[in-house]
Amino acid sequence: MGKGNFKAKTGIPPKSNFNEWYPFIVEASELIDKRYPIKGMDVWRPYGWKTMRLIDSHTHREMENTGHGECNFPLLIPEDLLEKENRLVSLLKRAREKGVNPDELREEEDEAGFKKEVYWVKHAGENELDIPMFLRPTSETAMYTMFPLWIRSHADLPLKIYQTVNTFRYETKQTRSFIRVREIHFFEAHTAHIDEDDATKQIEEDLEIVSRLMNKFALPVIISKRPIWDTFPGAWYTIAIDVVMPNGRTLQVASVHHYRDQWAKAFDIKYENKEGTQSYVHQTTYGMSERLLGAIVGMHGDDSGLILPPSVSPYQIVLIPIISKDNAEVINNEIIKISERINKMGIRTHIDMRNIRPGQKYFDWEIKGVPLRLDFGARDMEANTIMCTSRTGGKVSIDLDNLESEVITQLDSIHEVMVNNSNKRLNEAIKKLPKLINENGNWSLSEDLEEDKIYWTMFDGNDSDAETIEKLTGLSFLGDSIEESIKESECCITNKKTNRKVYLAKTY
Amino acid sequence: MGKGNFKAKTGIPPKSNFNEWYPFIVEASELIDKRYPIKGMDVWRPYGWKTMRLIDSHTHREMENTGHGECNFPLLIPEDLLEKENRLVSLLKRAREKGVNPDELREEEDEAGFKKEVYWVKHAGENELDIPMFLRPTSETAMYTMFPLWIRSHADLPLKIYQTVNTFRYETKQTRSFIRVREIHFFEAHTAHIDEDDATKQIEEDLEIVSRLMNKFALPVIISKRPIWDTFPGAWYTIAIDVVMPNGRTLQVASVHHYRDQWAKAFDIKYENKEGTQSYVHQTTYGMSERLLGAIVGMHGDDSGLILPPSVSPYQIVLIPIISKDNAEVINNEIIKISERINKMGIRTHIDMRNIRPGQKYFDWEIKGVPLRLDFGARDMEANTIMCTSRTGGKVSIDLDNLESEVITQLDSIHEVMVNNSNKRLNEAIKKLPKLINENGNWSLSEDLEEDKIYWTMFDGNDSDAETIEKLTGLSFLGDSIEESIKESECCITNKKTNRKVYLAKTY
Repeated sequence: MGKGNFKAKTGIPPKSNFNEWYPFIVEASELIDKRYPIKGMDVWRPYGWKTMRLIDSHTHREMENTGHGECNFPLLIPEDLLEKENRLVSLLKRAREKGVNPDELREEEDEAGFKKEVYWVKHAGENELDIPMFLRPTSETAMYTMFPLWIRSHADLPLKIYQTVNTFRYETKQTRSFIRVREIHFFEAHTAHIDEDDATKQIEEDLEIVSRLMNKFALPVIISKRPIWDTFPGAWYTIAIDVVMPNGRTLQVASVHHYRDQWAKAFDIKYENKEGTQSYVHQTTYGMSERLLGAIVGMHGDDSGLILPPSVSPYQIVLIPIISKDNAEVINNEIIKISERINKMGIRTHIDMRNIRPGQKYFDWEIKGVPLRLDFGARDMEANTIMCTSRTGGKVSIDLDNLESEVITQLDSIHEVMVNNSNKRLNEAIKKLPKLINENGNWSLSEDLEEDKIYWTMFDGNDSDAETIEKLTGLSFLGDSIEESIKESECCITNKKTNRKVYLAKTY
Repeated sequence: MGKGNFKAKTGIPPKSNFNEWYPFIVEASELIDKRYPIKGMDVWRPYGWKTMRLIDSHTHREMENTGHGECNFPLLIPEDLLEKENRLVSLLKRAREKGVNPDELREEEDEAGFKKEVYWVKHAGENELDIPMFLRPTSETAMYTMFPLWIRSHADLPLKIYQTVNTFRYETKQTRSFIRVREIHFFEAHTAHIDEDDATKQIEEDLEIVSRLMNKFALPVIISKRPIWDTFPGAWYTIAIDVVMPNGRTLQVASVHHYRDQWAKAFDIKYENKEGTQSYVHQTTYGMSERLLGAIVGMHGDDSGLILPPSVSPYQIVLIPIISKDNAEVINNEIIKISERINKMGIRTHIDMRNIRPGQKYFDWEIKGVPLRLDFGARDMEANTIMCTSRTGGKVSIDLDNLESEVITQLDSIHEVMVNNSNKRLNEAIKKLPKLINENGNWSLSEDLEEDKIYWTMFDGNDSDAETIEKLTGLSFLGDSIEESIKESECCITNKKTNRKVYLAKTY
């Protein structure tokens, strides 16, 4: 925080007006600065970058614990490598349209070609490049060019790597900080396996990782298998993880793709199996991005600003000395000692010694969403206590003798309150879709839909039925729930019994 | 390390043949893979990336301890922003040529324009962009566009930020891993101050940081003030930090620039001082890059591979179980316990349980430069000892009861040996320049120069004298030593007394 750099703005819009609150708060809390002269490319300020790197640190720990190695691939990809990917995507598209196995079409000539929303580098210095290059939107092409060099035998598998890098997408839609940007802070894990089953086990591991991470961030999520038309190009299937934002729009914060051997065939990634013959690997990817921070901002904040989960807050505790001219030195010295005791436990603290009124400090740190505030003045010193204020509500004076255990209790309790609040919000946001009524081929709903809700329904129809529902509701199919035991019930449109439960939502 | 992925290559070239040893060893140790299809853009493999991130972690700690905030700026810079920089650089160049103060020329029309070696983005998707953008070579332009928005009053100063990002340079010279690449893993700190003095203090702080870091990496350096013709464009002066590589070439691993208010005038970065009037800020930058890793590889390695300082080695200790069929389980369980005891001290370990001969493991970890190896077998178990082999030489059996203190002693001693060895190498590499002899205007040297050495001499001549020396020696002026008390002595060319001591070298 600048010394007086941040001036209380004209006032924070209420969070109920989410579409104004969100863009205001990401700047007012000094996460980012949107005034950089390229739309969709924001400047990460220290407070925002620290928060993002703490989010990343949880991901990295999970990756290291599950045997992934961290790589870093070049940003630029030569156009000619893209052709393999283009052919693959085009092939899968045609196979899907014809309802046949891609292998039946593999020898056909490619015509379509996949128009990427990429930034192109065709010039360097004063030269035009022989082979144009593009800025990675994701790294399949770059990585799978190297995989055949690294994978020779079954002993090289599984190959599990990941990286956290900047990726680029030439967005033509409206940009929004963290949610839809043109330079994306991106995490991607890529794995190669001996067979489909082993790749499927990786998908399961990824979903366990997602579940642990989302719990750390106090983000309840909807996990669904995307419909075929919304599957990542080149994927056999896509499982997506969505957060419901306060305006009822879902935000995809992570996705996991099972590629089977589709990319391996395009990039010729083979290994010698135990029997001495060559097989194609089966691959998966798992991606997340700065959208996680967008989701944390959107899910937890309130009318006073951000509320950051202790797991990702740059400062988990801010300490405010309450001083007068006479006692400033004594109080400040004491509060430094208190801060050091807390630091020793590995908890991130900050003492706000700025020469401004405590009220202004409270205001600043509330906007920035620091979970716990400790105020310490003459009366506290005398009583050997300190005043603890939780960003999620509640104030309590604690005995300094019990400082260590008390701050742990407080931080744990804040995390728990955040989990409970956001679970409650998700539960309230999900409704069962009203009945569909068919009068002479004209479909209608038995009840009006609510603006900020998402809906579930049982569904066993075809693509055309799905289109009917999407048109009628103005919602999109998120995908099929992956819950294990879904009770069989009637499809909302065909009335056939089914255990396919689908989610419908407005999406970001 | 892949399971059997790395095969002992045809043999490591001797380090005395440095120009073959270096490119071989960076790949054989699996730091990077150069087979990515763009020259000068290598793939960082997990072992290399981990080493680089450990190098970065020391830098980041120094930055946080000295009150710098970590930012992250967009990669792309619109061309029109570059014009301010172009005008500045052109202005300074002309002022230098004319020997006048830049302010005297500031109103003159700009003609020259600074041709950057940058990659251009002029297309996105299928569109040509209205304003071309380029990939940052460094971030002055991007950052100083934002500084006027963040700096209003003296209370906002000093502003101290840094970032670690990918930068790009369209190199036309031969590329070398870590040393001369086209995508650069780059660290840059940028500061703004109330006046020249405060900026000068920052330069001093930067040099202290450099000194602490180089000690961590066991890299002795030459610090010199670059000659005016080698000063960073836009800088008032540049202090560079060079490492002498085994072939006698110097490698600039860090540089610190004092900008005075030159950039502030170009980008209109002003603040209101205490008296209520507007002043330009004074600025500095401090940059380092993946060249640090190149220097570590080059300085410390030997005929068997890398030797990594314990401070940056992904594994500080590798443990090798020496097993037979009968005792594998017992030995492995025991070695896991030993590893855990070491981990608890915050030391990074790895147990190599691959199903290959210990000799092959020794070979692999020697190439990768792990500082300390612990072998543990049946005889050790019986004797309650473990065998300790230092990568810098020496082998000792230690009592397991003293494990914790002994491994600390061993690691400390390895660091010390590395510091001593590299100091010795630097001292041996620096020679006094032989006498210059002038016969009727023809200059010659009293002795031949050695191939792999760098030279110092006293110098008080003009640019033309410098050129004479450079031509005669085939060496370049590194710059003026910044040692504090240099004994006055005769200039090698003018014979005038001077206390300017200059270094001359072949540079990378």
